[in-house]
Amino acid sequence: MDDADRRFLDLAIEQAQIGWGEGGVPIGAALVRNGEVLAVGRNRRVQMDSAIRHGETDCIERAGRLPASTYRESTLYTTLSPCFMCAGTAVLYDIPRIVVGENRAFEASEVWLRSRGVVVDVVDDPACIDLMKRMLDERPQLWLEDIGETS
Amino acid sequence: MDDADRRFLDLAIEQAQIGWGEGGVPIGAALVRNGEVLAVGRNRRVQMDSAIRHGETDCIERAGRLPASTYRESTLYTTLSPCFMCAGTAVLYDIPRIVVGENRAFEASEVWLRSRGVVVDVVDDPACIDLMKRMLDERPQLWLEDIGETS
Repeated sequence: MDDADRRFLDLAIEQAQIGWGEGGVPIGAALVRNGEVLAVGRNRRVQMDSAIRHGETDCIERAGRLPASTYRESTLYTTLSPCFMCAGTAVLYDIPRIVVGENRAFEASEVWLRSRGVVVDVVDDPACIDLMKRMLDERPQLWLEDIGETS
Repeated sequence: MDDADRRFLDLAIEQAQIGWGEGGVPIGAALVRNGEVLAVGRNRRVQMDSAIRHGETDCIERAGRLPASTYRESTLYTTLSPCFMCAGTAVLYDIPRIVVGENRAFEASEVWLRSRGVVVDVVDDPACIDLMKRMLDERPQLWLEDIGETS
């Protein structure tokens, strides 16, 4: 991870922190093309009563309708390893690289993403780990809902 | 496909037709649990300027926040074979069965879905085939955008 990656991951972390403060799921994302931030986003399950607004999908939604060529030059930064909905979204749009803050609290799609040719770089970032630790500790039912799991 | 499947697929087709009339991508979906329609939805790329509102994801969004157990008893009906975003959404929520109107115009995720244990039943429905034929013929650039392809 270079300085630019650090800066863009920090934008995703900032989004996750905002989401936590809103009573939501603290996962954030940023979509960046050649050093230009196209959008940031965060999980808005609680804030928008949404079943499809994870950090990554919210970010891609906020980036607006883009031509295929733009996604193919972009990197998606996310504070937590993507679920299959978000991984599938990256594969749909041929996003070539995903920088993952941490994958200790959740990991499902990384092998599949790599099998599809996506570069997945896991940072193991302490701030990301701490956010999800608090989430699992303080809002466990909301977390289960977010990943489609029964208790 | 039994009579119930036919009825629920027809709801998805009705959504696709509405979407076509709105100037959008004619793909519709329905989420059904034990004979009860939880939601219908349609691709709203054009209508909502959205990169994540495919037929299936729009339908799941409109179903609202549901417990994991509900998705696990549900069937997703869609007029066109799901892209990886929509397939990944079904896998995230452990939706056990997807009824697909047709897969001639587009097919990407069926092998993967089946490898994940999802039952995928393809109907090869003439109305669904006709809708996508018109789409590819009359709105080809919009279609490429919707599936993240370059021309």
